Amino acid sequence: MKKNNFSHITTFMAMDTTYEEANVVVYGVGFDGTTSNRPGTRFASSAMRLEFDGLETYSPTLNLDLEDFKVCDRGDLELSIGNTDKVLEEIYEGTKEIVNDNKVPFMIGGEHLVTLPAFKAVYEKYKDVYIIHFDAHTDLRESYNNNKNSHATVIKRIWDIVGDNKIFQFGIRSGTKDEFNFALKEKHTYMEVSTINTFETIVKNLEGKNVYLTIDLDVLDPSIFPGTGTPEPGGITYRELENIFKILKNRNINLVGCDIVELSPDYDNSSVSTVAACKVLRELILIICDKLKFKN
Amino acid sequence: MKKNNFSHITTFMAMDTTYEEANVVVYGVGFDGTTSNRPGTRFASSAMRLEFDGLETYSPTLNLDLEDFKVCDRGDLELSIGNTDKVLEEIYEGTKEIVNDNKVPFMIGGEHLVTLPAFKAVYEKYKDVYIIHFDAHTDLRESYNNNKNSHATVIKRIWDIVGDNKIFQFGIRSGTKDEFNFALKEKHTYMEVSTINTFETIVKNLEGKNVYLTIDLDVLDPSIFPGTGTPEPGGITYRELENIFKILKNRNINLVGCDIVELSPDYDNSSVSTVAACKVLRELILIICDKLKFKN
Amino acid sequence: MKKNNFSHITTFMAMDTTYEEANVVVYGVGFDGTTSNRPGTRFASSAMRLEFDGLETYSPTLNLDLEDFKVCDRGDLELSIGNTDKVLEEIYEGTKEIVNDNKVPFMIGGEHLVTLPAFKAVYEKYKDVYIIHFDAHTDLRESYNNNKNSHATVIKRIWDIVGDNKIFQFGIRSGTKDEFNFALKEKHTYMEVSTINTFETIVKNLEGKNVYLTIDLDVLDPSIFPGTGTPEPGGITYRELENIFKILKNRNINLVGCDIVELSPDYDNSSVSTVAACKVLRELILIICDKLKFKN
Amino acid sequence: MKKNNFSHITTFMAMDTTYEEANVVVYGVGFDGTTSNRPGTRFASSAMRLEFDGLETYSPTLNLDLEDFKVCDRGDLELSIGNTDKVLEEIYEGTKEIVNDNKVPFMIGGEHLVTLPAFKAVYEKYKDVYIIHFDAHTDLRESYNNNKNSHATVIKRIWDIVGDNKIFQFGIRSGTKDEFNFALKEKHTYMEVSTINTFETIVKNLEGKNVYLTIDLDVLDPSIFPGTGTPEPGGITYRELENIFKILKNRNINLVGCDIVELSPDYDNSSVSTVAACKVLRELILIICDKLKFKN
Amino acid sequence: MKKNNFSHITTFMAMDTTYEEANVVVYGVGFDGTTSNRPGTRFASSAMRLEFDGLETYSPTLNLDLEDFKVCDRGDLELSIGNTDKVLEEIYEGTKEIVNDNKVPFMIGGEHLVTLPAFKAVYEKYKDVYIIHFDAHTDLRESYNNNKNSHATVIKRIWDIVGDNKIFQFGIRSGTKDEFNFALKEKHTYMEVSTINTFETIVKNLEGKNVYLTIDLDVLDPSIFPGTGTPEPGGITYRELENIFKILKNRNINLVGCDIVELSPDYDNSSVSTVAACKVLRELILIICDKLKFKN
Amino acid sequence: MKKNNFSHITTFMAMDTTYEEANVVVYGVGFDGTTSNRPGTRFASSAMRLEFDGLETYSPTLNLDLEDFKVCDRGDLELSIGNTDKVLEEIYEGTKEIVNDNKVPFMIGGEHLVTLPAFKAVYEKYKDVYIIHFDAHTDLRESYNNNKNSHATVIKRIWDIVGDNKIFQFGIRSGTKDEFNFALKEKHTYMEVSTINTFETIVKNLEGKNVYLTIDLDVLDPSIFPGTGTPEPGGITYRELENIFKILKNRNINLVGCDIVELSPDYDNSSVSTVAACKVLRELILIICDKLKFKN
Repeated sequence: MKKNNFSHITTFMAMDTTYEEANVVVYGVGFDGTTSNRPGTRFASSAMRLEFDGLETYSPTLNLDLEDFKVCDRGDLELSIGNTDKVLEEIYEGTKEIVNDNKVPFMIGGEHLVTLPAFKAVYEKYKDVYIIHFDAHTDLRESYNNNKNSHATVIKRIWDIVGDNKIFQFGIRSGTKDEFNFALKEKHTYMEVSTINTFETIVKNLEGKNVYLTIDLDVLDPSIFPGTGTPEPGGITYRELENIFKILKNRNINLVGCDIVELSPDYDNSSVSTVAACKVLRELILIICDKLKFKN
Repeated sequence: MKKNNFSHITTFMAMDTTYEEANVVVYGVGFDGTTSNRPGTRFASSAMRLEFDGLETYSPTLNLDLEDFKVCDRGDLELSIGNTDKVLEEIYEGTKEIVNDNKVPFMIGGEHLVTLPAFKAVYEKYKDVYIIHFDAHTDLRESYNNNKNSHATVIKRIWDIVGDNKIFQFGIRSGTKDEFNFALKEKHTYMEVSTINTFETIVKNLEGKNVYLTIDLDVLDPSIFPGTGTPEPGGITYRELENIFKILKNRNINLVGCDIVELSPDYDNSSVSTVAACKVLRELILIICDKLKFKN
Repeated sequence: MKKNNFSHITTFMAMDTTYEEANVVVYGVGFDGTTSNRPGTRFASSAMRLEFDGLETYSPTLNLDLEDFKVCDRGDLELSIGNTDKVLEEIYEGTKEIVNDNKVPFMIGGEHLVTLPAFKAVYEKYKDVYIIHFDAHTDLRESYNNNKNSHATVIKRIWDIVGDNKIFQFGIRSGTKDEFNFALKEKHTYMEVSTINTFETIVKNLEGKNVYLTIDLDVLDPSIFPGTGTPEPGGITYRELENIFKILKNRNINLVGCDIVELSPDYDNSSVSTVAACKVLRELILIICDKLKFKN
Repeated sequence: MKKNNFSHITTFMAMDTTYEEANVVVYGVGFDGTTSNRPGTRFASSAMRLEFDGLETYSPTLNLDLEDFKVCDRGDLELSIGNTDKVLEEIYEGTKEIVNDNKVPFMIGGEHLVTLPAFKAVYEKYKDVYIIHFDAHTDLRESYNNNKNSHATVIKRIWDIVGDNKIFQFGIRSGTKDEFNFALKEKHTYMEVSTINTFETIVKNLEGKNVYLTIDLDVLDPSIFPGTGTPEPGGITYRELENIFKILKNRNINLVGCDIVELSPDYDNSSVSTVAACKVLRELILIICDKLKFKN
Repeated sequence: MKKNNFSHITTFMAMDTTYEEANVVVYGVGFDGTTSNRPGTRFASSAMRLEFDGLETYSPTLNLDLEDFKVCDRGDLELSIGNTDKVLEEIYEGTKEIVNDNKVPFMIGGEHLVTLPAFKAVYEKYKDVYIIHFDAHTDLRESYNNNKNSHATVIKRIWDIVGDNKIFQFGIRSGTKDEFNFALKEKHTYMEVSTINTFETIVKNLEGKNVYLTIDLDVLDPSIFPGTGTPEPGGITYRELENIFKILKNRNINLVGCDIVELSPDYDNSSVSTVAACKVLRELILIICDKLKFKN
Repeated sequence: MKKNNFSHITTFMAMDTTYEEANVVVYGVGFDGTTSNRPGTRFASSAMRLEFDGLETYSPTLNLDLEDFKVCDRGDLELSIGNTDKVLEEIYEGTKEIVNDNKVPFMIGGEHLVTLPAFKAVYEKYKDVYIIHFDAHTDLRESYNNNKNSHATVIKRIWDIVGDNKIFQFGIRSGTKDEFNFALKEKHTYMEVSTINTFETIVKNLEGKNVYLTIDLDVLDPSIFPGTGTPEPGGITYRELENIFKILKNRNINLVGCDIVELSPDYDNSSVSTVAACKVLRELILIICDKLKFKN
């Protein structure tokens, strides 16, 4: 008889299904090597694992409970910090394994560049993949700090892969004039400047499609999400994001991969950004799991 | 002739009426013994007394001025920290004395469990008391950490006393599935998930009734109220709370007791939570005093 | 041939036109000597110069780019800290020089009292000047801490100069009963309590007029602007301020002087206030430059 | 073939021996229920597990390496927070199990009261146990806040068990006159006021004896250990503590139980206290393991 | 029978003797108007009143207890913030009243300039007064920021009053070459650069004399006293200051006035500076009271 | 006639000699790409330029004044952040230009890896160069995170260039057993564990030699230098470092290059680390200039 209860913090609360049995696999990728402003997104996943315990497993907004699904928190990927190319390869391999095992990868960044190799791994399997991108910044530069691979170029690199009419950008409120011209004038990407009002229409059009969802958490207003490298005032509120979650839940899109990036916990003095990231994680995992329920 | 002006910080600004003459009595209760997440609400009242000086005594929203009313700040209740049962008894006795002297008690927590003994003291005098409860969390657990008395069970304990149809919960956005089922499906309490839109209708129905108002300040969004134990994104803005204050002012309810709880100043790096708590305190005191004016 | 790139932080990014060629001159005034609550606005301009680099030069909201205009960052004015009268004189002289050289002065405070001498210098040149004033506080006291010149009296001092029907106050939500009575009942100033809805109508009426714009950044809600001396909950959001910028851009008013005041960087733990101040600076400079374009 | 490296933070680095094989068992006890000043020691063990990774497993001071020993980090004990008596019982049972399995318990508090039940469990097995106590405070009150069991009474409670001539206090620099009188004048405990110079002599006299070592980390000066509930200037430096470690290593005492208490990570802005606590943990574990080597 | 204990924070713990009965009078002077670097010493006394409760009334170092003496905390002097000359006058008048009532004034700054008017008031009564000055900085400039009265000129202004051979400076490690030349080469003041070793000899020579003691707390090393406007590495440790206290206790000098200045609590994230200031306050008050005991 | 004083923060105070005339050239290198623990040393030079103004130009310890020497602050080197190899090349080229122009390069890191390319540039010119290395960590790993070039391998890489008997390490208190074995047992480097007592003897032996001095500021104890990536308790105090400066001043060594690294300002809440780094910068520049005086 076990009299005493000793417990380890090992996984995100209620994400302790074995890898083999899980439908969704969460993993941390602590890379921030091309971050040009405030660094520290490397610490996001470990800060979130501690903070997540303050939430409940049940979401009243979605009326879904983590306890009812099979999610595996696989821990953090070990990375060759200091060598960007090697790190990108490691993320690619790590994600590919999960995708090849027919599980949905859910990556916690790190900076936004980590989306590139994760998306590549998903894209290689599903080919016809649309990207829904929430962000404050365009991330459409051709190169940045003399590097083609950067947090500021990541969506341009994905556009190099998928081409026109595949990328849908929301919440964008910062970029160079050239980036906006590229997105808006040539219609290379769908970008709605400053507002996210037409989100439902677009998601409706994506029903039945494979979708990779990447959320740069700085899409949220700095009032609720100060803990990030480059805060940009004028963002969406958490309640607006909640409405987006409801739309995602109600629309029949295939979420084949997902990531949330750019939480930098050491700039999050009051922890509200970390809590918000945790709640976003919970809601998105619930939405993905809820969709898989009908599939499997 | 006094040439020099030395002054002590002794009370909340303009709440220096003697206990005997006062109609409303403010007191601090620095207990956070069952707090499961970030502690520190014990420091709320002393942090607020310092910060309150940055406000004015006049409220343009309510067009009322603290200088025109008789409020006594009685200081903080001394507590047997470490022994939850004894502390609850001490709060009960402290509140009872105020209630018995026909004054309205206004308690500054401390964690939410302090509402239980304060409410009991009020309930014993007025019996037919309705509870208006603002919070991010249901607080309807049957027990928590093996304890029946906890910040997470406090409204359930009050329901044990008053039963159905007495408790009105607003702003709730976190809880277990069971707690929501208890509140919503059995109609044990009135709870409006995620929104507070029908507040006016409900308060209208309570006109002429005795009401105890308990505000867990984490009902506010973490963007404006980060300094609390368990911040929960998706809360109401301060301006929404201001509209609630206007409704409370305009409706003829008898506010027989009030508390604000769960400010944790050491997590409030920029002091905005403490300032918000102070402004809530000022507005609620003004509303209570304004109603008493017509009574006395 | 220069092989290596060494760079100095010398000016706000893209505000490096020489004084002689510039149309708009930005300068810092680090005075906070009458601040009664939290001090530190003295550090605003140097904190902003560092933080500004995280922004882009292009504004998607206004579709204007700093690179296209001639702005000079002249650095900070050296002040006789400790002697309020002397400091006011120094600000007056510094602003006068810019005004006399037919450039638009854009001052970064400092506490709000610095607006008085800057406005005086502008007023002496243009005489018929209207004041648009954004603030949380009335700043209409007759005297404060025994001083006639104070951050709490500055708008009253400007009223002493310009008289009735010249001052338009927005976002005000704090003051004494007397201050509100002065503003509202006697119509000495136009003040819209708590809301800013009629801003467009008023600016429309000011078309063709000379306008001095002073923004106490605490008009923003403390959720997005905690880093200030006296945060006051219930303020406007950054997106509301963006709408104001659009109106200012679209209406034909002559902006003959401008200031933003009351950022206190050491209370801005997460830097979001400093970033917000930088974005306000960029948008206002763009608006002023855009108007001058048609004039020159 | 495992291509990718995912890792979980599960234990203190290099303390991942199974419970069955381990000689020393580390466990966290997150209780701070009687803390009268700044709370938060509940977070010590989880903060330390993250921070510990910044250290090496090898100690040049002791010339010993964690990799060479069998240590089990058993995680944190689950506690009935809110009920002090129940919590003390849970700590007692948790420690007893380890002691009964012939392993050395190494507890990470929590506040200092947690030493009482842990010591009891050790004492019941070994009976003849001496206590070496490092602290800034006497902890010899008879009762505190109306409670006999408190962080301020814990050594008095241990004296109730062991009586005179068993307790050796070092680094003490704060207490009531009565507490110092009790310790010094009646020779109930050995206490050296303000200095720790005679430590070596005393440890020499304890050779061959069973010793329980309890270190309230606030014995360190607040310059190196600010992150604690009640910092007290005038403490020892880390290098002085290192000398104490060398003495402990070189003297033949039987360390039958050990704890380090009173780290409060949320008051440790720069993490130096947490790092210091981690280094103390490493050195003490190494010393205990080194002694066991010769025994087993 | 009083059943409930409500208490106000009104005075420093155990400094609640009435003004009339007190021998030593403590008062706060929240002026920081000439501070050129980080401001905020205005908050020192109120931060200290809260923090002081974490200490005991008994000092084991001095074997004296505050409970045994008659000390009055008179609160804070109300000041005309913004007008340096008026403020200096107010401090002078406030101190003079205490001195004239034959009580020892103990001022808590504020910036160092506040010492000038307080010293003047003391000097006018006792004339033959020596100054013991602890500081990191010389404070011997002739003028600073165009002002003769400044935190950087205060000791020079006192030298203007008392002349050569009266001022003894300790712990100094920063100043201009001219200031050091003034102090060292002309022997205008006694200054021991970088060390404080000969303190005892000097105090011995002052036996029987009237001494005003002014401690700029930045004499302490920034490791233990970060919370100040201009931290200067290389300062004394708290234990070195304790030895100074012992010397002051043991030598027969007449302490006719005392101040401690330059604590800036908002830069004291972990509160260790505030705690250190409180402990310095306690020890100095005990020393002064102990000396008075033999006089009265 | 210039009436008003506008000033830009352009260089470290009193380091405004033109590049051409200067003897010593200071430059910032904001690279932290291989940092494995807390990042942010990229911000060191800009934080230091602001903080430096709080110091004086005169050093009483050395009796030397910056005003008397020709130092050029050349600003920060622009780097291809994200590509470690390219960055190392850029630092090498930047340093080489200065060395080739017969000026002494003084680099402000950045993480410790930046020393490698800077040292290479110096070594190529002077060949027979000794390295004096202050650090808490050995930095002697062969590879780290799969990279040969890392902050944890930098001294090993320098040993690859210079071989045995050239490197003198002081203050080291952390490393793997292998690193210590490499340094101590094979005598590859001179390393004195835990103490720095024999520094004078060694420097005496280096008289007449070319010396490159690299100071990882984490050699200082975390009490005075918390703002760094990997704080390690047990370090030297600032006053011990001051004694080292005096020795360096008094011994006839040729300082042909110098760097200070590993200040991470965003972890330096109270700024004491940044101030300490500034003071180290001032003292070392003064020492180098003082030596050059006799040479030129």
